[in-house]
Amino acid sequence: MTIAPTCPTPIMQHETVQMAHGAGGRLSQVLMQRVFMPHLSNAFLDLLDDQAKLDLPSGRTAFTTDTYVVSPVFFPGGNIGELAVNGTVNDLAVGGARPLYLSAGFVLEEGLLLAELETIVRSMAEAARRAGVMIVTGDTKVVGKGQCDKIFINTSGIGVIREGVNLSCRNLKAGDSIILSGTVGDHGMAIMTSREGLSFQSRITSDCAALNGMIASMLDEQPCAIHAMRDPTRGGVAATLNELASSSSVGIEITEKTIPVKPDVRGACELLGIDPLHVANEGKLVVAVAADNAREALDLIRSFDLGRDAVIIGSVVDDHPGMVVMRTLYGSRRIIDLPLGEQLPRIC
Amino acid sequence: MTIAPTCPTPIMQHETVQMAHGAGGRLSQVLMQRVFMPHLSNAFLDLLDDQAKLDLPSGRTAFTTDTYVVSPVFFPGGNIGELAVNGTVNDLAVGGARPLYLSAGFVLEEGLLLAELETIVRSMAEAARRAGVMIVTGDTKVVGKGQCDKIFINTSGIGVIREGVNLSCRNLKAGDSIILSGTVGDHGMAIMTSREGLSFQSRITSDCAALNGMIASMLDEQPCAIHAMRDPTRGGVAATLNELASSSSVGIEITEKTIPVKPDVRGACELLGIDPLHVANEGKLVVAVAADNAREALDLIRSFDLGRDAVIIGSVVDDHPGMVVMRTLYGSRRIIDLPLGEQLPRIC
Repeated sequence: MTIAPTCPTPIMQHETVQMAHGAGGRLSQVLMQRVFMPHLSNAFLDLLDDQAKLDLPSGRTAFTTDTYVVSPVFFPGGNIGELAVNGTVNDLAVGGARPLYLSAGFVLEEGLLLAELETIVRSMAEAARRAGVMIVTGDTKVVGKGQCDKIFINTSGIGVIREGVNLSCRNLKAGDSIILSGTVGDHGMAIMTSREGLSFQSRITSDCAALNGMIASMLDEQPCAIHAMRDPTRGGVAATLNELASSSSVGIEITEKTIPVKPDVRGACELLGIDPLHVANEGKLVVAVAADNAREALDLIRSFDLGRDAVIIGSVVDDHPGMVVMRTLYGSRRIIDLPLGEQLPRIC
Repeated sequence: MTIAPTCPTPIMQHETVQMAHGAGGRLSQVLMQRVFMPHLSNAFLDLLDDQAKLDLPSGRTAFTTDTYVVSPVFFPGGNIGELAVNGTVNDLAVGGARPLYLSAGFVLEEGLLLAELETIVRSMAEAARRAGVMIVTGDTKVVGKGQCDKIFINTSGIGVIREGVNLSCRNLKAGDSIILSGTVGDHGMAIMTSREGLSFQSRITSDCAALNGMIASMLDEQPCAIHAMRDPTRGGVAATLNELASSSSVGIEITEKTIPVKPDVRGACELLGIDPLHVANEGKLVVAVAADNAREALDLIRSFDLGRDAVIIGSVVDDHPGMVVMRTLYGSRRIIDLPLGEQLPRIC
């Protein structure tokens, strides 16, 4: 008995995400072939196995994950796709790793425009190319209308940690200088001002960027002098400094007048009653570096476009372990605490 | 000047997830310390760095990701937490890898009961222990009420591929036997029958289980005879067989009467007009193995509790490449196609 080839099931040209796109059947394949693969195709993804099989270079492996739920999905300076790639690249890089491979897990809301999804996927592909990483494995789920908000993206990442580099938030030592690589609050205020009802004509754009190139140069030059790095995302520079102080059981003192804030961001923060130190950044670094090497590190960071506004904002002290203290513009000192609650939901 | 220690901010004893639990501030720490760490604490997670630093054994690395959006979150035989761990463990194991490390990315809906979250996290910890893997890095986001449905969990995983093993859905050869490790449709019908409005008194429970132990034994015994393995989740055995046939450009022939289906599952499928071959499984294997080794492989699988109902359901043929054909109970032959659309949304 012979069987005629199956007549291809007529696939409707949907303009929006359907529940069936997530069902593992023929429409899942169509979504894969029409929206994802044209942008993300590579030797690993093309195999369509349930897992990517990778030959990692020797060295310790860094592994990280982040889910992105930013709202709105498209914001001044970027979209959820490039944010998801850059954010996970940065989480690997601040651990001293060379980011290599990412996974991408999508949750799509029924009714999402396929054109929007494709724009997001294209941005992911471009961000991955810029950062020198490959998206090698993925997953797509679809949930009903009202069961998620447009699109959530998880990216997990693998990198290989450089030989001889030991970065950890527990490594701060009294005397270390604290470098901030640029202006604070850009990403968070770009999101806030683009949200419905809060859009006061502003030119604030997100600082969303991959930092791994700049970090690689820093670690090439000063593999031992750099004690810790963090990208101050949710909770802003305030949360990052508190985590560093607390993990290393040291105090941190910073000087308000050194902290760079763009005028538009400062204005928006004042209008909304938000401390720019609490606002998320997506392309900034906080670095703890041995005092003797701080000037050299600063000069190197400033040589990058992403770090041209870098400054030394303070230092690590023996006093008040676990606590961050700021000398204000008026000469007084105030404690920079973790924000208790929620000023800026769904910022990343 | 000395500064008195900060008076700890009074933290309300919330019973539900608050937006602030996802803000990266103090309440994020509270959620971490009260709900996640008591169950998940280990040498990697305890460091609270942005990435885990791992020493992987030598060998190729397998990397996979899956986001779980199952509804309801608690279902007969399991919950979303153990599903998320077992599912990703299985995706590594079917690639011939020993699963080692998982990440966990949570999206929580504002208002989710913390007690429910804790039950889910506890299940994840238990499932990880049973499967012999560690959850080494994580992330939590909170979205507003109505912006996700209770909880979504992404787990990504890393494993090390066994030396000398080469499993891929492109490796099927004409003559291979196809083994199915047990009854089909249990997970999907457990979800369906537990959904609101469809709960007809049934004893159907999910087959959610980690398969890595059984797979390790199979690869110990027959590292070269096994050509491909897949866990038939979304889209069921039908989708898995179609993927295998299509990736390897071979035909597959199966015999309906060999396919084990529990009577309750068969009854529910008939009532709902669903083909059990299209229903998701979460603790089953489809294996393509060289014909000469099929009997031995089958006996080994049957020696495990998870594989006691294993059968040879068919074989790989040269005819009709890319197509799966079933000899029905009535002796006729029908094409087993991919489901086009969506019968069972949010099944995993």
